[in-house]
Amino acid sequence: MRIVVAPDSFKGSLSAPDVCAALARGIVRAIPEAHIDQRPMADGGEGTLDAVLAAVGAAGRRRTAEVTGAGGARTTAAYGLVERDDGTTAVIEVAQVVGITDAAAMAIPVAQRSTRGIGELLRMLLDAGVRRFMVGLGGSSTNDGGSGLLAALGMALTDAAGATVPPTPAALPGVRHVDARALDPRLAECDIRIMSDVNNLLTGERGATAIFGPQKGVQQDSLAAFDAALGHFASLAEAAVGRRVADRPGAGAAGGLGFAFQLVGGRFSSGAEVVADLIDLDGALARADWAITGEGRSDRQTLLAKAPFVVAEHAAAHGVPVTLISGAVDAASVAELGPHFAGCFGLPDGPMSLDTCIAGAADLLAARAEQLARLISLTRAKGGPVE
Amino acid sequence: MRIVVAPDSFKGSLSAPDVCAALARGIVRAIPEAHIDQRPMADGGEGTLDAVLAAVGAAGRRRTAEVTGAGGARTTAAYGLVERDDGTTAVIEVAQVVGITDAAAMAIPVAQRSTRGIGELLRMLLDAGVRRFMVGLGGSSTNDGGSGLLAALGMALTDAAGATVPPTPAALPGVRHVDARALDPRLAECDIRIMSDVNNLLTGERGATAIFGPQKGVQQDSLAAFDAALGHFASLAEAAVGRRVADRPGAGAAGGLGFAFQLVGGRFSSGAEVVADLIDLDGALARADWAITGEGRSDRQTLLAKAPFVVAEHAAAHGVPVTLISGAVDAASVAELGPHFAGCFGLPDGPMSLDTCIAGAADLLAARAEQLARLISLTRAKGGPVE
Repeated sequence: MRIVVAPDSFKGSLSAPDVCAALARGIVRAIPEAHIDQRPMADGGEGTLDAVLAAVGAAGRRRTAEVTGAGGARTTAAYGLVERDDGTTAVIEVAQVVGITDAAAMAIPVAQRSTRGIGELLRMLLDAGVRRFMVGLGGSSTNDGGSGLLAALGMALTDAAGATVPPTPAALPGVRHVDARALDPRLAECDIRIMSDVNNLLTGERGATAIFGPQKGVQQDSLAAFDAALGHFASLAEAAVGRRVADRPGAGAAGGLGFAFQLVGGRFSSGAEVVADLIDLDGALARADWAITGEGRSDRQTLLAKAPFVVAEHAAAHGVPVTLISGAVDAASVAELGPHFAGCFGLPDGPMSLDTCIAGAADLLAARAEQLARLISLTRAKGGPVE
Repeated sequence: MRIVVAPDSFKGSLSAPDVCAALARGIVRAIPEAHIDQRPMADGGEGTLDAVLAAVGAAGRRRTAEVTGAGGARTTAAYGLVERDDGTTAVIEVAQVVGITDAAAMAIPVAQRSTRGIGELLRMLLDAGVRRFMVGLGGSSTNDGGSGLLAALGMALTDAAGATVPPTPAALPGVRHVDARALDPRLAECDIRIMSDVNNLLTGERGATAIFGPQKGVQQDSLAAFDAALGHFASLAEAAVGRRVADRPGAGAAGGLGFAFQLVGGRFSSGAEVVADLIDLDGALARADWAITGEGRSDRQTLLAKAPFVVAEHAAAHGVPVTLISGAVDAASVAELGPHFAGCFGLPDGPMSLDTCIAGAADLLAARAEQLARLISLTRAKGGPVE
């Protein structure tokens, strides 16, 4: 029996590879001869790099690069390279370079933080011949409209006197001229997939600054100034490149990195779909009898292209029943979730608190997988297709 | 697809027929064409009568009789009659006559309470031609050594002056002579199955009075006197009948009813086995593709002939995979439970308190059954026997 386990991470509890390991441990207790294909999933957010590298095995390599962090200090950023028949794909999480959990960078005011390190990383990869990128936009500490990224890739920002302006929110209002002629020409050859579940525009009431600025340290009385600075820079940058993207959904992701990546040709994609493609989920499912997916908590939102839903769609295409095992399954959503899965199950084996469930998640996952595997093993052995 | 649902009750939450209904409701949401055979189980304790009557359908009738309650007042006791090819079986719960939840009887001191109403009920049934009885001993308020039962069936208890002594703990020390010659001779033709999970002897440190007396109202300083009264009566009664049973396991069940029923030829049996036999569980399983059982909480104790274990044993004999769905499954016991079931599952779909779980038990049961049914329906449809 061939079983694909392709869960997302259980946020706050277990990484996707850990979830896979726990599920596999439980399955073999019930079906020792099972062939288990571990394909940890991700949606482009935190953990995507680890999940992809775990899923692709020998086809992937974990690398690090020394680049400029959000606060200006050098930082070591991890990224991944995945070799496939159609070439090399780099997997980048912007949080590795400008992460909101980087305490040193967070000590620098948000007005001074910049995304130039991400541009530096892209440039290194372009030098190395990489032309395919998947970029996860979650967890950034910056709100620079992606000006740092663009500057590092060759865009020139100058003031009224012709002097170079640093790509930071504090300095952007002083930009009088943007020159895109030196923007790295190799970008035109690239396939850049941007993974984000943020649909916000760059500026305005639902813009990057208004919605995400405060959690990055933008004071309430500075929101308007930040928003104006991003709008000012974006207009000049768009004019220089000859492309309008600030009003596209997602432009406001990651403090405007969604704007900048789109300006250089990046395309927003469903993170889970991009990951599924990269880890060849279809190849695994084509040979499978059963699949398991899951996430920390499942509800209606799961059907909005979250990883378990994407796994379900791909499994359906291959006629593979896929079971959902999540930390919790919202009872009010199960009627909508139900038709997409061969059973939706929560982790607990009885009444228990959230803390107990999280603390025991790995063992509970193994137990749930074991019991479900025993059930289908015995019922498949018992009978043929349902009458 | 033919599915047998044969759960015990979920104590404190749902009766076994209610559990069956919830499971069935969930299953048909996943497999509308399923043929569901509802066989509520019981172990001889509270709820046995209702479960049996629900399971046997048209073969069963619910009846009531006016008899003497534990406190001496008339009471209406329900019992059941089940017709089978081999005759009529009466299903009696002693709690229906001398129940510890009977507030009026509990207002009478335990020293005055008697089980004579149970003997009256048996006599009525003997008059009606019934010769098969299954008697559940749980939940009694009495501690009379079963003297009331025996007196009502014809045993004569007299004092030194030859006067009749009432069959109560208070009066038993005054008994000087017991005459069994008028004991109903039809008892010799009867098959009486006594259902109880109590193994205590009639008297002594682990006797009926020492262990169960206090919860029935026997004061600590009266325990020795009650114990002596039962021992005194039992010796005389045993001599009169010519049979020794006070030292048999179970003699101390139901305040000594376990002694009295054995004295008239009753045999202790596994309650769940007796119920399984009466409701023809084997007949249902012989045609089944899958079975579900369950109980409020499953742990190691479940393997001591509790209803779910008995269902599992019978299902195994028919090659039917049987899944356990209980309110909670003890994680420390699941390794021992696992081999007996095609999957062991708790009710919750996520972290929740015991109260929430109990309050929502019916919906949670339906949800769990639905999801499991969907899983096996789809995995059976997908493939044949496991390789």
